[in-house]
Amino acid sequence: MSTFGKFFRVTTYGESHCKSVGCIVDGVPPGMTLTEEDIQPQLTRRRPGQSKLSTPRQEKDRVEIQSGVEFNKTLGTPIAMIVKNEDHRPKDYSEMDLYPRPSHADFTYSEKYGIKASSGGGRASARETIGRVAAGGIAEKFLKQVSNVEIVAFVSQIGEIKMDRTFNDPKFQHLLNTITREKVDSIGYIRCPDVTVASDMVKEIEKYRGQKDSIGGVVTCVVRNLPTGLGEPCFDKLEAMLAHAMLSIPASKGFEIGSGFQGVSIPGSQHNDPFYMDEETGRLRTKTNNSGGTQGGISNGENIYFSVPFKSVATISQEQKTATYDGKDGILAAKGRHDPAVTPRAIPIVEAMTALVLADALLIQKSRDFARSVVN
Amino acid sequence: MSTFGKFFRVTTYGESHCKSVGCIVDGVPPGMTLTEEDIQPQLTRRRPGQSKLSTPRQEKDRVEIQSGVEFNKTLGTPIAMIVKNEDHRPKDYSEMDLYPRPSHADFTYSEKYGIKASSGGGRASARETIGRVAAGGIAEKFLKQVSNVEIVAFVSQIGEIKMDRTFNDPKFQHLLNTITREKVDSIGYIRCPDVTVASDMVKEIEKYRGQKDSIGGVVTCVVRNLPTGLGEPCFDKLEAMLAHAMLSIPASKGFEIGSGFQGVSIPGSQHNDPFYMDEETGRLRTKTNNSGGTQGGISNGENIYFSVPFKSVATISQEQKTATYDGKDGILAAKGRHDPAVTPRAIPIVEAMTALVLADALLIQKSRDFARSVVN
Amino acid sequence: MSTFGKFFRVTTYGESHCKSVGCIVDGVPPGMTLTEEDIQPQLTRRRPGQSKLSTPRQEKDRVEIQSGVEFNKTLGTPIAMIVKNEDHRPKDYSEMDLYPRPSHADFTYSEKYGIKASSGGGRASARETIGRVAAGGIAEKFLKQVSNVEIVAFVSQIGEIKMDRTFNDPKFQHLLNTITREKVDSIGYIRCPDVTVASDMVKEIEKYRGQKDSIGGVVTCVVRNLPTGLGEPCFDKLEAMLAHAMLSIPASKGFEIGSGFQGVSIPGSQHNDPFYMDEETGRLRTKTNNSGGTQGGISNGENIYFSVPFKSVATISQEQKTATYDGKDGILAAKGRHDPAVTPRAIPIVEAMTALVLADALLIQKSRDFARSVVN
Amino acid sequence: MSTFGKFFRVTTYGESHCKSVGCIVDGVPPGMTLTEEDIQPQLTRRRPGQSKLSTPRQEKDRVEIQSGVEFNKTLGTPIAMIVKNEDHRPKDYSEMDLYPRPSHADFTYSEKYGIKASSGGGRASARETIGRVAAGGIAEKFLKQVSNVEIVAFVSQIGEIKMDRTFNDPKFQHLLNTITREKVDSIGYIRCPDVTVASDMVKEIEKYRGQKDSIGGVVTCVVRNLPTGLGEPCFDKLEAMLAHAMLSIPASKGFEIGSGFQGVSIPGSQHNDPFYMDEETGRLRTKTNNSGGTQGGISNGENIYFSVPFKSVATISQEQKTATYDGKDGILAAKGRHDPAVTPRAIPIVEAMTALVLADALLIQKSRDFARSVVN
Repeated sequence: MSTFGKFFRVTTYGESHCKSVGCIVDGVPPGMTLTEEDIQPQLTRRRPGQSKLSTPRQEKDRVEIQSGVEFNKTLGTPIAMIVKNEDHRPKDYSEMDLYPRPSHADFTYSEKYGIKASSGGGRASARETIGRVAAGGIAEKFLKQVSNVEIVAFVSQIGEIKMDRTFNDPKFQHLLNTITREKVDSIGYIRCPDVTVASDMVKEIEKYRGQKDSIGGVVTCVVRNLPTGLGEPCFDKLEAMLAHAMLSIPASKGFEIGSGFQGVSIPGSQHNDPFYMDEETGRLRTKTNNSGGTQGGISNGENIYFSVPFKSVATISQEQKTATYDGKDGILAAKGRHDPAVTPRAIPIVEAMTALVLADALLIQKSRDFARSVVN
Repeated sequence: MSTFGKFFRVTTYGESHCKSVGCIVDGVPPGMTLTEEDIQPQLTRRRPGQSKLSTPRQEKDRVEIQSGVEFNKTLGTPIAMIVKNEDHRPKDYSEMDLYPRPSHADFTYSEKYGIKASSGGGRASARETIGRVAAGGIAEKFLKQVSNVEIVAFVSQIGEIKMDRTFNDPKFQHLLNTITREKVDSIGYIRCPDVTVASDMVKEIEKYRGQKDSIGGVVTCVVRNLPTGLGEPCFDKLEAMLAHAMLSIPASKGFEIGSGFQGVSIPGSQHNDPFYMDEETGRLRTKTNNSGGTQGGISNGENIYFSVPFKSVATISQEQKTATYDGKDGILAAKGRHDPAVTPRAIPIVEAMTALVLADALLIQKSRDFARSVVN
Repeated sequence: MSTFGKFFRVTTYGESHCKSVGCIVDGVPPGMTLTEEDIQPQLTRRRPGQSKLSTPRQEKDRVEIQSGVEFNKTLGTPIAMIVKNEDHRPKDYSEMDLYPRPSHADFTYSEKYGIKASSGGGRASARETIGRVAAGGIAEKFLKQVSNVEIVAFVSQIGEIKMDRTFNDPKFQHLLNTITREKVDSIGYIRCPDVTVASDMVKEIEKYRGQKDSIGGVVTCVVRNLPTGLGEPCFDKLEAMLAHAMLSIPASKGFEIGSGFQGVSIPGSQHNDPFYMDEETGRLRTKTNNSGGTQGGISNGENIYFSVPFKSVATISQEQKTATYDGKDGILAAKGRHDPAVTPRAIPIVEAMTALVLADALLIQKSRDFARSVVN
Repeated sequence: MSTFGKFFRVTTYGESHCKSVGCIVDGVPPGMTLTEEDIQPQLTRRRPGQSKLSTPRQEKDRVEIQSGVEFNKTLGTPIAMIVKNEDHRPKDYSEMDLYPRPSHADFTYSEKYGIKASSGGGRASARETIGRVAAGGIAEKFLKQVSNVEIVAFVSQIGEIKMDRTFNDPKFQHLLNTITREKVDSIGYIRCPDVTVASDMVKEIEKYRGQKDSIGGVVTCVVRNLPTGLGEPCFDKLEAMLAHAMLSIPASKGFEIGSGFQGVSIPGSQHNDPFYMDEETGRLRTKTNNSGGTQGGISNGENIYFSVPFKSVATISQEQKTATYDGKDGILAAKGRHDPAVTPRAIPIVEAMTALVLADALLIQKSRDFARSVVN
């Protein structure tokens, strides 16, 4: 299904070769100032063709709000948003008629639907994410107004080149406390906030481009200023919803929150986050944040942070020995130039999906807060 | 919310100090042979007190089917299942009245609900998973009948002691092809199929027990014989649903499918899974399975495999410096003996949640298969 | 599916010949005082065997809360409730093995599930409604605390005997303004608040009992003190949810709100409800209430009122010419004594389903109210 | 929420004064031939300005498929459809700035959302139904291919003028067996299949138009050739879903299926539908169809039939004494010419919503059929 969320809910549509892509966002609070200028920046960050590191196709990706907004104020009714498909050039993919591209969704879409879309994997196209990013822009604006929630994602690894992500290292936690989108974008399209590492990452990407190959990466994301109490026991724990959201992004292969995979070898006595009273805010806080901002699936007021690995792009220019749909061995060579590393473009998508999860969890909890306040 | 799934759907209830825990399973196919004996084995595997490695509390955990089954056949109506709470001993937790236990859900439940359950974190209790395991037993039986689907989870890491999980190592793939539950259980409660590693894991756990500490681990799970076409673009990709399910298990901190975090440094030319015709089955298959059994979020007929890290148990016998709910610094010491490593007990829970995801995805796809077959 | 509601959500289970029937209620506000004594009264009103007008079977129907409540306070976690099946006597129905009972669900359940429950229509059994009534008790208590919401249903018609339900008659509107459950129950089990009409209704029922036949009736229900703004455009209008709820009750055949079917012949100039300022409350109100308390699917603060017809009971003691499952003509005679009119027993079920709809709509709207309050 | 359905699912958007209205339809079977020509006819039937009986505004309402279809075949992915808003003329409604129009949704939308859309009742606008009718066109096409399902609605009452709807009259049942859309449309826009009654209805409408007033009506709808087994116990009974759908249509005030409100005074012995073997089809059928095609909420293979009352249009040209939002008494006079009876235009909307309910129920049941077929 193409719907995500319960109260703050997005339904997306569109594949790469149809008239338009977009979404309907339901459950947007009424009376919120909103224009296309709130939505466009993240769409522009998501767009291919931003630098020589990415694919040279030029897509305009201008969002048009269709409904739910009058005089720049949301009505509380569904907001439909459309982005026209302009530069699709379906002819480029003709060989696909014979070959399911390895590690693309061509084969599985064919198995699932019994029909081949001209783009092969229909909704597996990266263009599907436009609707998500547009919806995320609204969710982010709402979250910002609630409690100045900040969501910042960055590239923490490309191939073998990585930033230190040791969860219990104060330097890493300091980075999470201070990183901004401006900082992330300041070094360029690579979107890694460490100048030296970023430079090595660019070289890594160029190396694989030279080999007509591709390479993956990891995106790390932090959420600051989130209220406590978000996340629904027991199946819709906040980290469960975030994991769901992240694994729904094309090419993602995992998720870890807080100490994640590293944490399993740290004993409980060190892993536990002890409490202290924060005199400034008068709130109970934790001295460490190995949990990554949730306990029992519920936000505890500390930073939420998590990482998501993205596999190497499946479309490569070099030849691949594979088989046709009919099972005949052969060699597939993708035409045209291809983006050797899409991880930097995943940044606004990760941020958008995070915002969608949080806006939904917040609305659900606020309904409970009301109920709490009236019963006895 | 305490409901998981769309068609094959479980709703669980219960915390550790109430009369019973259990679930209602809706959408179970009618006419399926089912008795409590189909459900009990995994509940027994989940139960604490199975060995000296685990907590010494004795829980009986006998499931009682309430509805939806007559003469050992499912009616197609909701199946309610109950497990009585017998050995709860609420007094053990009295100090909790003052202290939110570090890295437990006491604090967040209090923030969310504004009320303290006598167990602290209410539904964050491990007993909540009983309903999941009971429901999973039904899902597994159904999947087995559909296409002999096999789901096997095992402990692949405890603390620093780990089995080799190199995704593109033929030995690891061979293990995934051949591992059985019998093999997993044969070495004992540790549930690691490698005798040598298992022995080291036991020592690792004993070490932390001796230190009144706890230690985490990783569970790896494989699904074999799953039909192609399962998983719903674009938000309910099969891996997204699995990630959601896994991160909803208490103490889990992550998820990776196929190449996961490792895969980001393998270039596309090596990461892509090329196709070949499998003469024996007449099906198009992939030579490698770096994808972990899905492409574009849809099952491709290869093994699904994934890993889930579980953090070190938060309840430890040693003293912890922390603060009370009121913000006063103090020292919390948990009474009684505690399980230093719960990862082995997570095995049947991981298997159950996997079965629930797959049964639901299968029913959804089968409805589409029908529709495909009648239109033109 | 056996789940109703989005936030305040009930999942029911059980048929007439299994161990127990009951439900899980999710989304109950935390911190609310709740005991079995809050639930039992409506279950007792629902119970068969209350008078000679109803079936002589004696069912005890004592509810047992399993979870979600400690020290008489709700925890905010799912509340499971169980009512044991004691007096089922499955042998009574043996002829059903050959005959699908006319206008029962035996045939359709058999078509749907391919299996015959020993009660014939499985979940079509009236015992299924126990879970609804139990859940409704919680919803009602919540609504009462929010704004003293009052829900009162009564029998307005049995067979040809009817109270005047002319929607725009001030006497009828006065009745709606003043009717209480005490008044409804004061005349006896017939649950019609008009003494004279009630007396005729009893005679009507006795007439059909004497003929070994059955007769239907109409239930009218009013909701007072409901806040404005409840109901979700465009598909989950408040009246749409109420209609859904009412038509889900066994034997109901319709629904009308406000002017209903009568209203179509009243021109707009008379049907429209003009506004005036109510000086006492300072609220804009309507002079008439032909709309029945909603406009555009959203509550306007006036009384919600609606009526629901219940068909004559399908189980009758006289012989019926019909056919077996195999298609052989024959005569079916139900054994035992049967309730000739179940409409009075539908009263607490109608009230419960109404409460469930309203509690859910209220929680949804309160989440929006919060959102409205923070954005600009 | 603006989403309807579980598997065959439509999400609509748009109000009367935004750029476009439309919908996303998810769960459409792949491989189905589909063009805009399949969708447009019902949209054209829904369109205002079809005859002098309706409003003179000319709307073009051309649907544009955005996605999910290639080379006239559905891909199985979401189908977005857009209809541009061309002739909205928002200035006509200026007086609304002061007055909430009686029995319109202006007041309740204002209460719910705290913001006034320029159309007053935002999504309560009849234009919202365009998305429903477009989606219904796809659902109908699918149902036709499954088992030649036929859905025909007609106007059975306008004001006091009515066709005989006696449910157990063979003439009425014959009408339900034979009525076609061609027949319904043949007499003109009034959409009543009885020439004499239709003529009186037109006079009735003209009478109220002359009085600058409006009048309501009843739509009756029949579904033929529906498979058995559709409808989900216990909350999503087929009639519950239909009632939900019908009451979600603007201006509808009720629903009755089969014998409905009439049936309550017919004793069980006459109301019950006895079975017989239909030699022609080899199926068990019922001699009468007082149930209206379902038992226990599940389709039994007989005709589904139901009626829906639509209140008199709230917008009338004559002056109305009412109050402003601020509570000041005054007189509101709507400008322009208005449609005195919209019941005929409700026909395609009733048909569309019916199709959406049935397509969803069918897909759900087919998934169960599969499951039944593999278990033992």
